[in-house]
Amino acid sequence: MISLKEISQKVNGQLKGNPSLQIESVNSIDRANAGEITFSVKETIDPGKLKAAALIVKKNSKIQYPNLIYVEEPYRAFAVLLDFFFPSQRFNESVDPRAVVSDSAVLGENVSIGAFSYLADHCEIGDNCEIHAGVIIYPHVKIGKNCLIYSNVVIREQVKIGDQVIIQPGVVIGADGFGFTRLSDGTPVKIPQKGKVEIGNYCEIGANTCIDRATIEKTVLEDYVKLDNLIQVGHNVRIGKGTAISALTGISGSVDIGENVIMGGQVGIADHAKITDGVMVVAKTGIHGHVKEKGIIAGIPQQDFMTWKRNQVILKNLEKYIEKIKQLEQKIKEMEEKAK
Amino acid sequence: MISLKEISQKVNGQLKGNPSLQIESVNSIDRANAGEITFSVKETIDPGKLKAAALIVKKNSKIQYPNLIYVEEPYRAFAVLLDFFFPSQRFNESVDPRAVVSDSAVLGENVSIGAFSYLADHCEIGDNCEIHAGVIIYPHVKIGKNCLIYSNVVIREQVKIGDQVIIQPGVVIGADGFGFTRLSDGTPVKIPQKGKVEIGNYCEIGANTCIDRATIEKTVLEDYVKLDNLIQVGHNVRIGKGTAISALTGISGSVDIGENVIMGGQVGIADHAKITDGVMVVAKTGIHGHVKEKGIIAGIPQQDFMTWKRNQVILKNLEKYIEKIKQLEQKIKEMEEKAK
Amino acid sequence: MISLKEISQKVNGQLKGNPSLQIESVNSIDRANAGEITFSVKETIDPGKLKAAALIVKKNSKIQYPNLIYVEEPYRAFAVLLDFFFPSQRFNESVDPRAVVSDSAVLGENVSIGAFSYLADHCEIGDNCEIHAGVIIYPHVKIGKNCLIYSNVVIREQVKIGDQVIIQPGVVIGADGFGFTRLSDGTPVKIPQKGKVEIGNYCEIGANTCIDRATIEKTVLEDYVKLDNLIQVGHNVRIGKGTAISALTGISGSVDIGENVIMGGQVGIADHAKITDGVMVVAKTGIHGHVKEKGIIAGIPQQDFMTWKRNQVILKNLEKYIEKIKQLEQKIKEMEEKAK
Repeated sequence: MISLKEISQKVNGQLKGNPSLQIESVNSIDRANAGEITFSVKETIDPGKLKAAALIVKKNSKIQYPNLIYVEEPYRAFAVLLDFFFPSQRFNESVDPRAVVSDSAVLGENVSIGAFSYLADHCEIGDNCEIHAGVIIYPHVKIGKNCLIYSNVVIREQVKIGDQVIIQPGVVIGADGFGFTRLSDGTPVKIPQKGKVEIGNYCEIGANTCIDRATIEKTVLEDYVKLDNLIQVGHNVRIGKGTAISALTGISGSVDIGENVIMGGQVGIADHAKITDGVMVVAKTGIHGHVKEKGIIAGIPQQDFMTWKRNQVILKNLEKYIEKIKQLEQKIKEMEEKAK
Repeated sequence: MISLKEISQKVNGQLKGNPSLQIESVNSIDRANAGEITFSVKETIDPGKLKAAALIVKKNSKIQYPNLIYVEEPYRAFAVLLDFFFPSQRFNESVDPRAVVSDSAVLGENVSIGAFSYLADHCEIGDNCEIHAGVIIYPHVKIGKNCLIYSNVVIREQVKIGDQVIIQPGVVIGADGFGFTRLSDGTPVKIPQKGKVEIGNYCEIGANTCIDRATIEKTVLEDYVKLDNLIQVGHNVRIGKGTAISALTGISGSVDIGENVIMGGQVGIADHAKITDGVMVVAKTGIHGHVKEKGIIAGIPQQDFMTWKRNQVILKNLEKYIEKIKQLEQKIKEMEEKAK
Repeated sequence: MISLKEISQKVNGQLKGNPSLQIESVNSIDRANAGEITFSVKETIDPGKLKAAALIVKKNSKIQYPNLIYVEEPYRAFAVLLDFFFPSQRFNESVDPRAVVSDSAVLGENVSIGAFSYLADHCEIGDNCEIHAGVIIYPHVKIGKNCLIYSNVVIREQVKIGDQVIIQPGVVIGADGFGFTRLSDGTPVKIPQKGKVEIGNYCEIGANTCIDRATIEKTVLEDYVKLDNLIQVGHNVRIGKGTAISALTGISGSVDIGENVIMGGQVGIADHAKITDGVMVVAKTGIHGHVKEKGIIAGIPQQDFMTWKRNQVILKNLEKYIEKIKQLEQKIKEMEEKAK
């Protein structure tokens, strides 16, 4: 329980209503009950239908409600309150005696490591990192401060990770890129993958996602990159700052993705493609070649979204058009007959 | 070795043939040799080509064969015999001393736990559960009776799993959903994912599949849901009873899938879509919006399957139609010339 | 540092230039600096723009450069030099005391096993195998010589793996195939998966890829099969010698893929499809039925690549053609009016 006044201070808001009202929890707008606080980014809600004790809205909102808190970013306030009402617990408090930490590994202050985790030689782990159980970290890996690494993650040798990074369970970082050459008799021969992976600050990597190491250079995720689950990031790829990519997307080798790109799920990107900043990619798009202009793209291969959408409508009606062609053919035949 | 009579009793069948015939094993119809039993759900087989010692058929089958067992469900009888002739072995008999089990965890009768598995505080594991090696179970997880959890599975905090559930290796249940908001300057900010996952009875989850926890509420798999490998189930999703989904399918946040839906592989479903009971979804379909009628769907976005199929035929012949349009154009030109 | 002469001997090449030149490293052609060696398979490069100390080219190349090494296969020479300049380190030297190795497991000479790895009863591991940390190997698994198995891999019972195989982190081999039957009331019932997986020599399996065991028989990868990350190989599949498959591809049950097939990412193959030797499959193709002729295929369902490409051009211009149909319709109407 916390008073509305205290909540208002927590989210840096301006309160209109009863400051001493006690709040039990936070919830989504259609589920919040009496005792709970919720939020809206839309102005078009019907306050009469809400049961919430209080409502967080945008600074200039005109919504009327008994208890309101005005903030710059209601979604961010929601995030803050989720963390407050549902606090995370550390997986364990310190280094579990059943973990293996190499003598040459360097741990910062306040690092916790779960059972059955393995830190190989010359690893460096920054202050306040939390490494859960079953995490395998190969030699010469560097991890920044305040990172959270869930169970059964594998981080291969020489991977470098920034501060405040979250890695969900089962992620594999730094596996060999898919590089083969074929001898003249067709036999495939592995090209050793000796490069690195570098992950910036504030990134998040979804469960069972794979980020391959480069052949010689490095695969790069810049700051604030957000990857969903089961994504494939090939060798030598670069993903720009703030880009977010949905599940089951496949990014081939040497692809270059700009900043603040937003990608739906199951997108595929052919090798060496280059995508400029701010592009939005519809789910299941297949990208081949360069995307030079900001905008929304869809289709296989990619088209401007509006063109694609109009084409989809035509495609749904293809039979009608084919019928029309046949009718025209028939009419012309008749006209020709008459003209004889 | 077991007599045909005993087999007939095991599968609840009616025997026509030699009850004392000794059977060595079970096999598929085109591979079963003398000494082996097989089954057929089709009537259109050629018994003369079979080498099997005996044949399991449907109750009202008219197939003639020296040794026949009539049953309600031949496939189920096949399943029973597979388990009999190829019995599963427990991974280990009890709790391996190299597993970690929290003092506050509650284990039912006859639970086995493999080496390097970790059961955190306040877990509850039902009777006869078999947990293999390297399984990490976070605090407050509840697992029902008779579950089988293969190696290197990760189950995050507060996940609830029913009875008779099978979880293949590498599965991740309860990872954070992919929820972000962007500040006015575009910076993505994580929405903490504080909800749960609930999995019903008799479910099976394929290798390396990921099921995300909800933001506040819960992600739900009802009873008898069967998921193949490498599937993504987003936060707040509900999958109805008896639904089966093939590999590499991606289900976005807040999707609602009905009962007994059957889905091919690599299907993608956009967020908040709702699919009614009994729908069949062809592989690679991209679903957007609601699917309100039972039937087969295909395409991106989804269409009725028969329409889609006819459109595919047209698409294969597009060049022909374009040629026809050009011919008509030419003819009209000629007619106009004449008419001058 | 190594002399050009020594490098030339290492790659079995013919040297033209300064044999005592000291080489520090190897790099790609556009990044190699003074002191580094690089290679080109193309003749159309501009040697004036290179900074590399030396260049490896094909035996009959006409490229002019101060220091050249002529070889049969420049890519292979590159692979050899990568391994030389960036030598791999063993994860650990012997059997880690924190690994569990069953008394009935048989280890060859010079096998190393990482901490928290588990070798169950009756496993056989060939000479010089390197098994990293957290690898779970079920009973009766046989692994050949010189294999490299990265962390957190799971290999289920009775899987057989050849020599010189590399398995990236998080791979699951031998999980149950996705086999269910439905009772007359619709309830899905598991078909037990009691078959095996057999993997040939010189195969490589990418991170988090899954290869399911067969129902009764075996799932087979022949020699030199190369699988990228996050691939699904269903039960009873056979993949022919030398075939290479890119990430996120899904191969349904009982598919038969020939030799030296090359497949892009996110390809889907329907069950029981058969693909002949040497076929090339464009990314995102959906294969249904048999592919009987060698060639390039694309589309859903698959078409000959050239037809598909021409159709894509038409599809991009669909609106134009629809417009044309409307014009023709109008003209015919006008002609009919006149004719009255």
